[in-house]
Amino acid sequence: MSNELVRFSVAMPEDLLIAFDELVARRGIARNRSEVIRDLVRDALIEEEWNNPYHEVVGTLTMVYNHHEGEVGQKLDDLQHQYYQQIISTMHVHLDAHNCLEVIALRGSSGDVRAIADALLGMKGVKHGQLSTTTTGQWV
Amino acid sequence: MSNELVRFSVAMPEDLLIAFDELVARRGIARNRSEVIRDLVRDALIEEEWNNPYHEVVGTLTMVYNHHEGEVGQKLDDLQHQYYQQIISTMHVHLDAHNCLEVIALRGSSGDVRAIADALLGMKGVKHGQLSTTTTGQWV
Amino acid sequence: MSNELVRFSVAMPEDLLIAFDELVARRGIARNRSEVIRDLVRDALIEEEWNNPYHEVVGTLTMVYNHHEGEVGQKLDDLQHQYYQQIISTMHVHLDAHNCLEVIALRGSSGDVRAIADALLGMKGVKHGQLSTTTTGQWV
Amino acid sequence: MSNELVRFSVAMPEDLLIAFDELVARRGIARNRSEVIRDLVRDALIEEEWNNPYHEVVGTLTMVYNHHEGEVGQKLDDLQHQYYQQIISTMHVHLDAHNCLEVIALRGSSGDVRAIADALLGMKGVKHGQLSTTTTGQWV
Repeated sequence: MSNELVRFSVAMPEDLLIAFDELVARRGIARNRSEVIRDLVRDALIEEEWNNPYHEVVGTLTMVYNHHEGEVGQKLDDLQHQYYQQIISTMHVHLDAHNCLEVIALRGSSGDVRAIADALLGMKGVKHGQLSTTTTGQWV
Repeated sequence: MSNELVRFSVAMPEDLLIAFDELVARRGIARNRSEVIRDLVRDALIEEEWNNPYHEVVGTLTMVYNHHEGEVGQKLDDLQHQYYQQIISTMHVHLDAHNCLEVIALRGSSGDVRAIADALLGMKGVKHGQLSTTTTGQWV
Repeated sequence: MSNELVRFSVAMPEDLLIAFDELVARRGIARNRSEVIRDLVRDALIEEEWNNPYHEVVGTLTMVYNHHEGEVGQKLDDLQHQYYQQIISTMHVHLDAHNCLEVIALRGSSGDVRAIADALLGMKGVKHGQLSTTTTGQWV
Repeated sequence: MSNELVRFSVAMPEDLLIAFDELVARRGIARNRSEVIRDLVRDALIEEEWNNPYHEVVGTLTMVYNHHEGEVGQKLDDLQHQYYQQIISTMHVHLDAHNCLEVIALRGSSGDVRAIADALLGMKGVKHGQLSTTTTGQWV
């Protein structure tokens, strides 16, 4: 990996550049044009990583469930052990007397990560779930 | 409006630049770095236009409905006349003996356009609807 | 096609039902539980139609471009003729002295409709574009 | 809170019901109509919770950053201490020699959670970030 900064020039209509500079300012006082362009480029690249089912990606699965309902905690745990090669780590939060938040970090091909997410989200007793699609950081 | 091209330089880690150049190539043979960066910047700006309820935007509302059900065509027409100031034009397609596609082009503050879209989408008999959020083109 | 209404029963925790009834009320005064559930079911089905590249779908492509830039209007027109079998109809709006809105209704396999949308959106001079993903109405 | 199951009837066109039953089957062998409808209703309710800036929500923020760049780890830590009242817990994964994954569980008004997410995502050195929008589970 080479993280050396390379400089290249971009052409933009003057109006668009003025609007872009205002966007840069809104993104935070210490930010500059290059940083915001790097963000936009990375977002586009990560979207593409996920569209290729064989690309290695990182995802985090956020789930809320009622731990009194149908032994969902036990079953979630069993299912996670089946996929121990893709599941890096799990964070668990007791939201109240009934509800649990479980956040699972996954790493594998985007196809595998999506399939595991579907299996976990399809479990009886899971109230809500969402897959967050990020990256190993290697190519961005 | 000034559409004169201004040139400025961007700094990017070498690895990210290599990945970006591959993205540029995938977006089409005749495309170059500046064009793809302008696309990414415009997408980010238009998203912001819509987050400000007072910003003038353009939207297109796509709806599918069964024209045999509850006079939905007539009611849609009545509702559209109420908002004639924001509705620019409507395209109608007969999909089959029962189903109609109606596409409505709207222009106004993003708050108004969203409210009109909600009113139209909430009508009885509308099977599916989606608001596409674009721009007058004036600021991008 | 049979549009005859069938009735079946649904079990829901009392709390969720109270929250759902408030949602139904917010969706419009004349709406009832069955209608809102039908909407939610249709949205989920149409999302699946688009995930199958061979399923016949309807899409509308919304584009904004500057008609003074690089003969984009002419090229868009040429490209649309190539895909005349999938393109049903086009609506064109002159937004100001420079900017045009073009809305294209497409019908075909979801794979074809996406590919045509990519080709049109990748054209030089197109400022912004978005594909709205709807349905023939036949299966929902 | 009452989690007692209440039963009510829903009317649906026969065609839509057939398509819905196939959707239920695809969601997993042990699932039934009521469960899938409860999922769809919960998704719609949670989307609304987030649209009200005063509603208490739970979110998880997923970030990837290069820990060699500009002391981002230290600064992220400082920033998180400012918001200790909304930040429940943080999970950290070393993805490779350079890249870190950090997942932060947040709880607070949706306005506060969004503002904290924006502050963290706007930090120099963060390569990618995404907010996952879920719920305390109390109202769904």
